[in-house]
Amino acid sequence: MAKDLPVSPLKVELPPLPPVKGVRLGVAAAGLRYQGRPDVMMMEFAPGTTVAGVFTSNKCPGAPVDWCRTALKGEAARALVVNAGNANVFTGRAGVETVEATAAAAAALVGSTPTEVFLASTGVIGQVLPHEKLTAALPALHGALKENGWADAARGIMTTDTFPKAAMRKAAIHGTEVTILGIAKGSGMVAPDMATMLCFVATDAAIPAAALQSCLRQGVEASFNRTTVDSDTSTSDTVLLFATGQAGHDKVSALSGSALADFQAQLDALLLDLALQVVRDGEGAQKLVKVAVKGAVSDSSAKRIGMAIANSPLVKTAIAGEDANWGRIVMAVGKAGEPADRDRLSVAIGGTWMAREGGVVEGYDETPVVEHMKGREIDIEVDIGLGKGEATVWTCDLTHGYIDINGSYRS
Amino acid sequence: MAKDLPVSPLKVELPPLPPVKGVRLGVAAAGLRYQGRPDVMMMEFAPGTTVAGVFTSNKCPGAPVDWCRTALKGEAARALVVNAGNANVFTGRAGVETVEATAAAAAALVGSTPTEVFLASTGVIGQVLPHEKLTAALPALHGALKENGWADAARGIMTTDTFPKAAMRKAAIHGTEVTILGIAKGSGMVAPDMATMLCFVATDAAIPAAALQSCLRQGVEASFNRTTVDSDTSTSDTVLLFATGQAGHDKVSALSGSALADFQAQLDALLLDLALQVVRDGEGAQKLVKVAVKGAVSDSSAKRIGMAIANSPLVKTAIAGEDANWGRIVMAVGKAGEPADRDRLSVAIGGTWMAREGGVVEGYDETPVVEHMKGREIDIEVDIGLGKGEATVWTCDLTHGYIDINGSYRS
Repeated sequence: MAKDLPVSPLKVELPPLPPVKGVRLGVAAAGLRYQGRPDVMMMEFAPGTTVAGVFTSNKCPGAPVDWCRTALKGEAARALVVNAGNANVFTGRAGVETVEATAAAAAALVGSTPTEVFLASTGVIGQVLPHEKLTAALPALHGALKENGWADAARGIMTTDTFPKAAMRKAAIHGTEVTILGIAKGSGMVAPDMATMLCFVATDAAIPAAALQSCLRQGVEASFNRTTVDSDTSTSDTVLLFATGQAGHDKVSALSGSALADFQAQLDALLLDLALQVVRDGEGAQKLVKVAVKGAVSDSSAKRIGMAIANSPLVKTAIAGEDANWGRIVMAVGKAGEPADRDRLSVAIGGTWMAREGGVVEGYDETPVVEHMKGREIDIEVDIGLGKGEATVWTCDLTHGYIDINGSYRS
Repeated sequence: MAKDLPVSPLKVELPPLPPVKGVRLGVAAAGLRYQGRPDVMMMEFAPGTTVAGVFTSNKCPGAPVDWCRTALKGEAARALVVNAGNANVFTGRAGVETVEATAAAAAALVGSTPTEVFLASTGVIGQVLPHEKLTAALPALHGALKENGWADAARGIMTTDTFPKAAMRKAAIHGTEVTILGIAKGSGMVAPDMATMLCFVATDAAIPAAALQSCLRQGVEASFNRTTVDSDTSTSDTVLLFATGQAGHDKVSALSGSALADFQAQLDALLLDLALQVVRDGEGAQKLVKVAVKGAVSDSSAKRIGMAIANSPLVKTAIAGEDANWGRIVMAVGKAGEPADRDRLSVAIGGTWMAREGGVVEGYDETPVVEHMKGREIDIEVDIGLGKGEATVWTCDLTHGYIDINGSYRS
């Protein structure tokens, strides 16, 4: 189990978290792994709630991910049950039994079919998650669900996280205000195409499942899929978006994109907010790093170059050492395998362009860059000089804290 | 400049290094970056020497790599000049001038054309390499070249290396014994498709350049392209193989594969020996890790899965912590993006199969695995269970030492 970790210096405080109509939630301590803290979180959704989901690209996903992928086909959700401390991954038949038993127990409590229950687990891989402890905790937990449980829920799903993560946005649909509220957890094994990262978002908007899925895919692509802590892709990554339909706005058709324009914009902002909170809590992180790439041959090429920089251990350790080592950035651009020309490449840190056209900028004064490197938020800009493709990605630095946390996680 | 680093506990001693007929070599202290130690190494080859080369896949290579790629077309070599401490990468026009001036100076000394001179540089990126200091050191260095300079040469090309690296093999061509001798440097920014890694091999065999190139490509694919320290691909990776033709064996035709069978086998062994010495000196390395993958759908799929495991920071930190965390190995298999089925996957550490068919092996006793994890050499085996593809790759663990070295390299 993780030792007591120092809180990330990049921590942000929980914002005000009002109720979302049609959602009641709460937490319980089931003693699955942690002692003396909540480790099970449950949400109940009003009848008629639609659901969308995006999951890990890892080819060895956990049993809860398999379950959610199947359940998603029903397009309807009545409950969500999440546990912390055990990922229920690589647990064979026992893992499948745990998800089936948990879904059945929750379904009985909320009066739904089991496939209207969604599940997620994070924590250690390869240890059987004893469903008896989990299901035994559910009746009392269900009995205590309330509208104002968001902050507790954000805390209840933490594992190596050092601060709880939540975000809230308001959006207008057909002139009616709707609320979008999300919580997330994640700290290590955080890489593109998600993370050991769970994110649960609820809205009181009424949106058909297909349109909701499209909104979520777009939002995840521009947020969680642009962040990396350590290049490792979890077996458990899950983002679920629930729409309870309680806000009372005019009907949204499955294909009515324009009615959802503001909702999409606010959802995008909320997901990016949560994704950056996860990076801010990256294991051992001392600095939040933004990598903006432009001038690539395409947006996707820019994203791959950005990720090569953001995943480079040499770039990340240089940042930890507050060393404006743009040579390593040049190296990372070159290793991405994307079109790049050394002699057209430019690199800036903290707004100072230090390398241009294959060499150091003449008369380059390192002073403002050295100052920038001492800060908590590091800005890297790269201009490939070949085209109009651009992308921005985020990461954190690689520090002794990462080694401390991950060299002893199970001990 | 790198601080005084503790010598890697995985160090191996230099083997006996006899002369290679047709090669004279030596080192000098030009004060390019380091003070009080040799930082320039020169070899002179007998007339008629053929040459083969393999270079970094990085799209932003250094000026010396550009030079060698062009020079290689001449198929002939008379000299090699290598410096340590400055990579001559991203140095624009000045970098090109440095390689041109260095090649011209060396060519004048050995009586060849400049394109028969090969060059390599490692060290800091983005600082101009002053060719005056380099070329000023060459006449005295050339005057002192000798046949017994291999150990000095191995030491003279080190940067963050903590021990010199060399290997020697004997092979038979048409019944005549030939010598193959190589030196290498490399420690960080070491990733597949090579490394911040230089390797220079010489043999007294007489092999046409095209056949020599084919031998070298095959050998590099099975050695340097199967090792990784930190997933970063240098801008300077260079492997050069020189054949002086002084051994006096019967002629080898350009296409005579069978005559070179033993040479190839011994060259492969020598290159793997050197590649593993580089991994043993991986920055901060405390353990040498072998990852053997079988049962993949193809050999190339097995290699990609092996590299995903070998490059996973979570796998590497777990090994540093002596934690037999096979869950992270399952994660890394899944993130490789190659065909894999969680329920057919098996994982062994130190010969003990601990995970099979989607779950922990029944009655799994961790005792021998815990013991194995305390050792210096860690064996990981993965059976994907889908086909006959297999590959073995090597890496080292990820420790505090890596962060120490790379968070302060330039300071």
